[in-house]
Amino acid sequence: MAFDSAVQGELLALLGEDRAFFDPATRQLYASDETPRACPPEAVVFPTRHEQVAALVALANRRGFPLVARGAGSGNVGGALPAPGSVVVSFECMNRVLEFDPANRLMVVQPGVVTDDIDALAASAGLMYAPDPGSGAYCRIGGNLAMNAAGPRCVKYGATRDHVLGLRAVAGDGRELKVGGRTSKYATAYDLTRLLVGSEGTLALITEATLKLVPAPETVASLRVCYADNAAACAAVERVMAQPVVPCALEFMDSRSLSAIREYGGAEGLPEGTRAVLMVEADGDLDDVPHQIALLEKALAGPGLLEIQSGFAAADIKNLWTARKSLSHAVKKIAPLKINEDVVVPVARLDRLVAAIDGLGHRFALPIVSFGHAGNGNLHVNLMVHPDDPDEMARARACRDALVEAVLGLGGSLSGEHGIGSEKRRYVARELDAATLAMMRDVKRLFDPNGILNPGKKLPD
Amino acid sequence: MAFDSAVQGELLALLGEDRAFFDPATRQLYASDETPRACPPEAVVFPTRHEQVAALVALANRRGFPLVARGAGSGNVGGALPAPGSVVVSFECMNRVLEFDPANRLMVVQPGVVTDDIDALAASAGLMYAPDPGSGAYCRIGGNLAMNAAGPRCVKYGATRDHVLGLRAVAGDGRELKVGGRTSKYATAYDLTRLLVGSEGTLALITEATLKLVPAPETVASLRVCYADNAAACAAVERVMAQPVVPCALEFMDSRSLSAIREYGGAEGLPEGTRAVLMVEADGDLDDVPHQIALLEKALAGPGLLEIQSGFAAADIKNLWTARKSLSHAVKKIAPLKINEDVVVPVARLDRLVAAIDGLGHRFALPIVSFGHAGNGNLHVNLMVHPDDPDEMARARACRDALVEAVLGLGGSLSGEHGIGSEKRRYVARELDAATLAMMRDVKRLFDPNGILNPGKKLPD
Repeated sequence: MAFDSAVQGELLALLGEDRAFFDPATRQLYASDETPRACPPEAVVFPTRHEQVAALVALANRRGFPLVARGAGSGNVGGALPAPGSVVVSFECMNRVLEFDPANRLMVVQPGVVTDDIDALAASAGLMYAPDPGSGAYCRIGGNLAMNAAGPRCVKYGATRDHVLGLRAVAGDGRELKVGGRTSKYATAYDLTRLLVGSEGTLALITEATLKLVPAPETVASLRVCYADNAAACAAVERVMAQPVVPCALEFMDSRSLSAIREYGGAEGLPEGTRAVLMVEADGDLDDVPHQIALLEKALAGPGLLEIQSGFAAADIKNLWTARKSLSHAVKKIAPLKINEDVVVPVARLDRLVAAIDGLGHRFALPIVSFGHAGNGNLHVNLMVHPDDPDEMARARACRDALVEAVLGLGGSLSGEHGIGSEKRRYVARELDAATLAMMRDVKRLFDPNGILNPGKKLPD
Repeated sequence: MAFDSAVQGELLALLGEDRAFFDPATRQLYASDETPRACPPEAVVFPTRHEQVAALVALANRRGFPLVARGAGSGNVGGALPAPGSVVVSFECMNRVLEFDPANRLMVVQPGVVTDDIDALAASAGLMYAPDPGSGAYCRIGGNLAMNAAGPRCVKYGATRDHVLGLRAVAGDGRELKVGGRTSKYATAYDLTRLLVGSEGTLALITEATLKLVPAPETVASLRVCYADNAAACAAVERVMAQPVVPCALEFMDSRSLSAIREYGGAEGLPEGTRAVLMVEADGDLDDVPHQIALLEKALAGPGLLEIQSGFAAADIKNLWTARKSLSHAVKKIAPLKINEDVVVPVARLDRLVAAIDGLGHRFALPIVSFGHAGNGNLHVNLMVHPDDPDEMARARACRDALVEAVLGLGGSLSGEHGIGSEKRRYVARELDAATLAMMRDVKRLFDPNGILNPGKKLPD
């Protein structure tokens, strides 16, 4: 690494004085993402154009410093955590919508556009950008592309990767790529578009994305469904996913989540004995949604069902979601640190995953709160710990290991939507066999031979 | 190339006497696909297991002969056309369904399973394998995976690539890969799954695929919609794709198609003056489909509309499709050779594409019949020629060139669903810029350093 005043000068020359920062305050501000870990970068830069990004990659290769791409820094696996000696490339100032073409159901955006703003602009023409990460109000589409972000609606519409038609990007070796296109069908070249989506800034820096939009549904309705235990709720998830009406949300809160809400507020109106809740939504046109809701209610009914409440008007829907929305707050009160795993299993094995997590909580004497996108078999498993208690932290480490074993044993995967980053990469070699992992490393080397882009992420050392 | 009796012996030892053939009759039988071109391979082999495929790739690397993967040989761009000195790897005997897991909406298949059989098995549990290529009754899923095949339903459900969760494969360098997984969401490793889909047997040989299934709709209804001219039909396509109800087919026949049907049979019942037809389908549950059809009829109405006929019962639907189904037969009567381009443009530019094709027909004095998946902007443009007329063939070549220019000028792509194969690769460098094409070549070299797999396909020389 040769990060000195000469490099500083080159960065300033490239980006201008108001787009390259070396002061401790700025470096500290960009030292972390939502992971409880920090590493101040050497510099933070804010490119505004593709050409600057290309020049930046060329400079990084020439001078040998790492580049860490960053959207809003809202990821929670260390995807945007600076590497030692690195320059953070914040895409906050590449935040323009370059083209909105409703007739062709597409939008071309720079990586710094806020995800919800894309959806809002699409909505102005009766369209929708379907992926809806929980951080949508502030996260940037570039981060979504990096991690293959998803959200509740993805059970019906698919994740970020399913909504990208084409990309403009700069590979780690400096080559400027234009992959994919503007059409809804494509059988021409190798699909590097979907390879770059989810590659966590380790292969290329994305500078433009052509996103696919879908028709916006006329209306949405919600169900809050209360069960006597986790198993009853999981069985209902399996029944819902085995019948034809695909909900646009199928969210689960386990018994531990409900204990937390009861203790710290938000459980008002839940029937006594509720030990698991499903939040279910249907979208479509005004005539059809009640019909979908009726069919979903039928599938949701079964042993252990305590209550189904439906909401069709905005105020009622909001009310039904009160318990779910209070969950984040309640969980934080259990313990100061949340170790969030984002595991995914085939949906009909969700019951076994939830039972296994229950067992792990007892075995390691840890409060584990699980909730998430049950329709995809994707749970956020939160180990609640005190970071200053070394014994608890050791148990948490062992518990994570055991959780990974359980998930892989059920045919699942380490991450459904958060990605791998720095925090989960030590588990990757358990999921991938050696030959496949070696090929992944070769792909990394092909795109980024000098290891400039986001080192120490995604793949294990 | 060292294809001699020693190699023959090794192939026999590897596959057994009933799975490796060197006789002229078999080699001739596997010398071509649906492209009007032939090149007998040196041998045809029929592996039955993944391990044999891995051993075959190792042998090909050691001995230096090319392997050309083949499903049913129903492709029409030369994707399965043997290279000189090659061994055809027919997957016809790897035709087992390894696992059908309706609760998790997935099926694990070998590449030789016939596409329609997958859909039929899925239907037995109320599910559907959505991609529906016209050759579904006999094509093999391996070929579909190689080409990213699609069909009418893909306007609503997406193409083959959108329905693959994971793959087992042998890369050209012999490495055995397991990519993707069994879950409906996935953010763990690089997405090599979708990279291999559509790579036309040039990167790896796929030996197992985990396919995603969707709920089967309860019913389907059809509309046959007649227009006074191409422009009126294209405007209707644009209106349909701008409103919320996504049809499960939106097929177009241009004025030349209708002339052919009129001349050679199949036009009975079409109103006088019909110069373009849309075939539109909606699927869903019994209560909802009539509602969808009503909304589609509204969008389809506009200037130049002559007639809308709807069909809800199977017999009526079949009747409505008569003209469309007679088209292939009628087209063949125009001239002995059909040069089939499979171009795709953003859907709102379909009108301009169709007008451009009309202009090309006049300019090059060629009958050009266009029809296809209008909802995706994906047209099959058929130049009808006499192969023994050198002047006509020269005009056809010039016309193809001009068509490619027109398509790329409209922001489109060379292929929507047929792929590139040997027949279109000379155009690829017009669509991809030099840096992107170089990266594609590097990807090829990474997976297949000795160029063993399907040489002379997909990428230009």
